[in-house]
Amino acid sequence: MTITTAIKQLKHSLPQDSWTDDIGLIAPYLREWRDRWQGDTPFLVLPKSTQEVIDCVNICQQQQASLCLQGGNTGLVGGQIPKSEILLSTKNLVNQRQQTPETLTVEAGQTLTQIHSLAAKENKIFPLSLASEGSATIGGLCSTNAGGIHVVRYGSMRQLVSGLEVVLADGSIVNTLNPLKKDNTGYALTDNFIGAEGTLGVITAASLKLFPKPTHTNTLFVAISKPQKAIELYFTLKNTFPTELSAIELIPELAIAWVLKLTNQLSRPFKENHPWYLLIEFESFNLESNLKIEECFNSFLQRKVVLDVVMANSLRQAQQLRSIRESISASQKKIGQSIKHDISVPVEKVASFIQLASKAVIEYIPNCRPLAFGHIGDGNIHFNVMQPIELSASKYLSHWETMNIIVHDIVVSLGGSISAEHGIGILKKAELVSRYPNKVKHMLRLKNAFDPNNLFNPRLLF
Amino acid sequence: MTITTAIKQLKHSLPQDSWTDDIGLIAPYLREWRDRWQGDTPFLVLPKSTQEVIDCVNICQQQQASLCLQGGNTGLVGGQIPKSEILLSTKNLVNQRQQTPETLTVEAGQTLTQIHSLAAKENKIFPLSLASEGSATIGGLCSTNAGGIHVVRYGSMRQLVSGLEVVLADGSIVNTLNPLKKDNTGYALTDNFIGAEGTLGVITAASLKLFPKPTHTNTLFVAISKPQKAIELYFTLKNTFPTELSAIELIPELAIAWVLKLTNQLSRPFKENHPWYLLIEFESFNLESNLKIEECFNSFLQRKVVLDVVMANSLRQAQQLRSIRESISASQKKIGQSIKHDISVPVEKVASFIQLASKAVIEYIPNCRPLAFGHIGDGNIHFNVMQPIELSASKYLSHWETMNIIVHDIVVSLGGSISAEHGIGILKKAELVSRYPNKVKHMLRLKNAFDPNNLFNPRLLF
Repeated sequence: MTITTAIKQLKHSLPQDSWTDDIGLIAPYLREWRDRWQGDTPFLVLPKSTQEVIDCVNICQQQQASLCLQGGNTGLVGGQIPKSEILLSTKNLVNQRQQTPETLTVEAGQTLTQIHSLAAKENKIFPLSLASEGSATIGGLCSTNAGGIHVVRYGSMRQLVSGLEVVLADGSIVNTLNPLKKDNTGYALTDNFIGAEGTLGVITAASLKLFPKPTHTNTLFVAISKPQKAIELYFTLKNTFPTELSAIELIPELAIAWVLKLTNQLSRPFKENHPWYLLIEFESFNLESNLKIEECFNSFLQRKVVLDVVMANSLRQAQQLRSIRESISASQKKIGQSIKHDISVPVEKVASFIQLASKAVIEYIPNCRPLAFGHIGDGNIHFNVMQPIELSASKYLSHWETMNIIVHDIVVSLGGSISAEHGIGILKKAELVSRYPNKVKHMLRLKNAFDPNNLFNPRLLF
Repeated sequence: MTITTAIKQLKHSLPQDSWTDDIGLIAPYLREWRDRWQGDTPFLVLPKSTQEVIDCVNICQQQQASLCLQGGNTGLVGGQIPKSEILLSTKNLVNQRQQTPETLTVEAGQTLTQIHSLAAKENKIFPLSLASEGSATIGGLCSTNAGGIHVVRYGSMRQLVSGLEVVLADGSIVNTLNPLKKDNTGYALTDNFIGAEGTLGVITAASLKLFPKPTHTNTLFVAISKPQKAIELYFTLKNTFPTELSAIELIPELAIAWVLKLTNQLSRPFKENHPWYLLIEFESFNLESNLKIEECFNSFLQRKVVLDVVMANSLRQAQQLRSIRESISASQKKIGQSIKHDISVPVEKVASFIQLASKAVIEYIPNCRPLAFGHIGDGNIHFNVMQPIELSASKYLSHWETMNIIVHDIVVSLGGSISAEHGIGILKKAELVSRYPNKVKHMLRLKNAFDPNNLFNPRLLF
């Protein structure tokens, strides 16, 4: 009965355009794009201000009616999909609060693409870049400590946010919104909420760091013989171009083949097929870097460190090369079902990981097709294992948990993480608890400190 | 009686070379170099391993005997000086734990200078740089979220640490030591302990991020007419050399005069005196930057943006210029007593702050001599107000709290922070509580989560 009373009170307290119980309107919020979770909720709240969030939280706290929090609904671990809880979407929190020469303070519902535009108006960049940037919102990006392709140079959200506004379960506000670069007055409250997947509070606004806009960008596609070459190349480039290297993405031939099969707009970067590729990006502020990059890769080619190189000579070509990388996830979905892993290991161990994990999954399910791609400079590999042609999708997917355990055992033996950037959510909750019992114990200290009644996202993390 | 029992048990449990009750040996740990605090303790523990820290914490927790934590004893806000608590110094935790191509994991007692040497052996740098680096230890630097002159490019300790080992009050360990660049398995535990001034746990080890060693460094001394010029210059340089600008320090003429009066080794960078100066440093990885920097400052000179420029043409000259900046604090101490402020405001408001605060303190105490210097690119100014010649030191220092309030009122009105990098400690505790009651409430959530019995540094922060 408590949830019924809460809904009654919410309808009474909030403006009519800040909620809905219309099943048709709610439906899109209950599915995520990978179709792995289907949720349900009796009620959707879409607050337009921090005060409306506070009102909603106070009512739900009083009635002990849990809230599921959602940003742009692009999460990959099921955290944003309600299961009978009231759903609170922050996508209508869209005001811009403040701008200084080096920061931008916006409400949680702004999309990453909107932030890119706001930054561009000031001739600055906000460097976070990921495939879902048109839908992903600042609130969700903070809550998941989002990464993307530019982490190698700029870091993840935790490094890109200088402050937050958060509504806690008791209706109070943590406000660290702040254009200051240095502030040592007490504890670092902000970082607790970044990557907490909405379990500690509702992020309603964020101060984002802006960076000077590079004057030159170089985008290259490079063919290599094996992942170990990619690691060596990463360390060489990081030492030679430490401030310029802004992306280095590993791509296997199979991924390219699938992307091209399903997209008419893209074409193969090289005439011949090669076993592995790297998409590499450099950002710089002087013309000299251009020449140095060209020289460097010519020398790699001569010394057979790389098998072939394409350097984009137009923005359009650069965008095409980038699109190949960005289309990998979407193309896989069309090919069939895959069991996914989002892992990281120390960079120097990426090749060992790919080799060991590929061998292990093929031993477990013969003819499955492992696809390892991603952010090699961060040691972060998306290891997605495609179903064998002869196996039905549902039969194959029933192996999800067991295969995860096989792969994650290898990750842990290499000193790695079982969730590099997508988070824990529903998907990896059991493994978090079983693999990191000590960490979970410490996490519970924080959960109890900020949300002792488990009001927010009660099914997550623990 | 509890502390007596604790000491008895500590003597029994710990090796003899891990503690002392010899007053003579303890004495140096009870004074800090600015001579503002004089402490006392019946017992000093100097653990040599994490296990010894755990043993010590368990005994003290059981006997409810509080611990004061100390690193290299270079703190500026009195946090490291015990007042009857048992003193735990982490300076004998000196092992190196692990090294990867881009991280270094060391125990808390290593000094910053030792870390610089270890990094140099790998042809890398650990970019934190501050005057006390020969004594300051990693544990203390983490606990105070230390900054220094390179924050403008590399950030403070919170950005430079990738993981910690921390002993909590219940004897359990938070271990996030980790060479991984991405790890989204649960909450960001690490950052709670960075800048917590030892109130949440004992930092026993840290994983530090290493960076490629720049191939070229340019050190300049620039004369300018007023602080507003420094702000304009910062924004211009940050846009022109966003990856090269590694330090930009504001220095008033009075500071130079005092430094030179007290040091024979240093000489005035310009023949003439100018009202204000900037020490500027660029780090780069190509020779072209050198030429561009020279061109840029020649143009500033021609357009009278700056009054004069010296570019160091040898490592020795660069070190001399840097020494002028680094000697400011020490020279002031010899000149007389000063009332200090370590504040930050948004960078664009630094000139307003200096003007308003200087006027206000002179109105409050005629003939006092405000000295504003420091990290202009971070908006972080050390605003130290020297005693008037006619006033006795003790009489002058009795105005400390009132002057702090006058200056901090201006800081807060400009959206700034009353502690930019030195922390809160004993010095600013009353102001923290009165100015940020809401923040303190949230901080208490964390204190209760990690140290509910107030075992660590019980007199700090709250």
